[in-house]
Amino acid sequence: MEAEFVAWLRERLPRHRQLPLGIGDDAALVRLRERGDVLVSTDMLMDGVDFHLDQVDPRRIGRKALAVNLSDIAAMAGRPLAAVVSVALPRSGGLSLAQQLCEGFLPLAEQYDLAIAGGDTNSWDGPLVISVTIFGEPTSRGPLTRSGARPGDMILVTGSFGGSILGRHFDFEPRVAEALTLAERYELHAGIDVSNGLSLDLSRLLAASHCGAEIRPSQIPINEAARRLLEQESTDSKISAVTAIDHALGDGEDFELILAVPPESARQMLKDQPLEVPLTEIGHCVAEPGLWQLDDQDQRAPLAARGFLH
Amino acid sequence: MEAEFVAWLRERLPRHRQLPLGIGDDAALVRLRERGDVLVSTDMLMDGVDFHLDQVDPRRIGRKALAVNLSDIAAMAGRPLAAVVSVALPRSGGLSLAQQLCEGFLPLAEQYDLAIAGGDTNSWDGPLVISVTIFGEPTSRGPLTRSGARPGDMILVTGSFGGSILGRHFDFEPRVAEALTLAERYELHAGIDVSNGLSLDLSRLLAASHCGAEIRPSQIPINEAARRLLEQESTDSKISAVTAIDHALGDGEDFELILAVPPESARQMLKDQPLEVPLTEIGHCVAEPGLWQLDDQDQRAPLAARGFLH
Repeated sequence: MEAEFVAWLRERLPRHRQLPLGIGDDAALVRLRERGDVLVSTDMLMDGVDFHLDQVDPRRIGRKALAVNLSDIAAMAGRPLAAVVSVALPRSGGLSLAQQLCEGFLPLAEQYDLAIAGGDTNSWDGPLVISVTIFGEPTSRGPLTRSGARPGDMILVTGSFGGSILGRHFDFEPRVAEALTLAERYELHAGIDVSNGLSLDLSRLLAASHCGAEIRPSQIPINEAARRLLEQESTDSKISAVTAIDHALGDGEDFELILAVPPESARQMLKDQPLEVPLTEIGHCVAEPGLWQLDDQDQRAPLAARGFLH
Repeated sequence: MEAEFVAWLRERLPRHRQLPLGIGDDAALVRLRERGDVLVSTDMLMDGVDFHLDQVDPRRIGRKALAVNLSDIAAMAGRPLAAVVSVALPRSGGLSLAQQLCEGFLPLAEQYDLAIAGGDTNSWDGPLVISVTIFGEPTSRGPLTRSGARPGDMILVTGSFGGSILGRHFDFEPRVAEALTLAERYELHAGIDVSNGLSLDLSRLLAASHCGAEIRPSQIPINEAARRLLEQESTDSKISAVTAIDHALGDGEDFELILAVPPESARQMLKDQPLEVPLTEIGHCVAEPGLWQLDDQDQRAPLAARGFLH
């Protein structure tokens, strides 16, 4: 639904001189006249969809609501500056819940020197909704968009993938510092954070860049949670054809970065390994639009983009 | 609940160098390092609280969601620049609903040359939630805060009050242009927009300014909707002690401006009447904290601050 709606909206929305990038990237770039450009992003989390309030400490929900927005700023290689937080709270226990949500996001805000600039606190008879809008500033190199990948670029990822549902989707570390380090030291062409799924978010980056990619699934770093999830599933059901690689490609909410990097820069990054998390090459961009997987004999087959769609 | 929560949060939130005003005004002032200051405000509207989806054209809901945010920028005498819009849509008919919401707010955005910079579109099993974050820029005179009123200031209001529930709470015109005109031409000390109720929002301005006020209820401009509402109520129930003035003082969602203005400037404004809507003096600020009403014999009695509390 969201993709269809955004396509409809894109047609309707007049190109505005204050939006040099238009809509559809991880964060919007807003031109504040003589004030320069700021990055803006917003994410709304809802009970029953993004979390189950009766199954999780509200502090983790509050933390996640801010962390997913920080991840959007990271995807643009920006510096976070400030955020506002709005909530619709169930009437019963609302004050205590609001306080626990704050206790979740305030330490994260402090960690990233982010100003919590305000918000809107409401009570209602519905389930908990928390909506965060963040803004940040691009570095002097400008924002890292989804649309700059070129054929020949190597595709690198931070960290590992799959099984975030076992808990990492709450407690992940947004890759803000990592993106800033990489953007400062290396030439990067494009970037996106993995919210919906490695293959799906990669396909979005490729679509925005009007190119395709060949991926080696065997090179994708698998999070141990993907293997644990697989074990749970094989206990739960008789036969499962799903592999840990499938989980890594499609689970989503890893909040790692996918980067399209010119080859020389990529080789230097892989050699330097300048981050605390590993940087891994998983494939390369090609001119022909689409997504393919390569096996160990370099045989190519189409790879379906899978992931969590809102 | 919101007041209690904001008080709790204010204690907890470290004073941030990027927030020169702290929290609690109509919009936050965010210092973007070398980029200067921007105004940020956010409001969330929920089905069953702020509107009833089954009783109103969704375009009016979309328009209101943006208009209440524009009103917050007006209350700071700022210029709107951009907004982001997030929604939680019921699963059934979500796309069509999202489109109708847009058809409501896009013309208003165009009218105010506001960039719709992005958003987040979600589906769920709950009722419609729409959350807008707006930002703007203060004029060269700086933001018009709630906290600058001084004893002796005259209290002026734009437009008229009461009975907005009959429809005006959807279709009001945010006083953006009016605030800019007044801030440019006259000395203003403080301002707030009336979202919760004339008496309640005035008492908030007074509290932020550490002073009180004496009001002449007979001078409050009554909207004809307040009288219509009164007629409906007197038909509905046998006896009603409520007056049109009570509606004007407590109904809320008028989205008019309350301004504290030094006497000389106020007299000039009242003489000039520089707006298309009337400017009316309703009282004056006094040193003693609190809110009083004066009758025609200048007899003073406490006036309870009433309004809609979230």
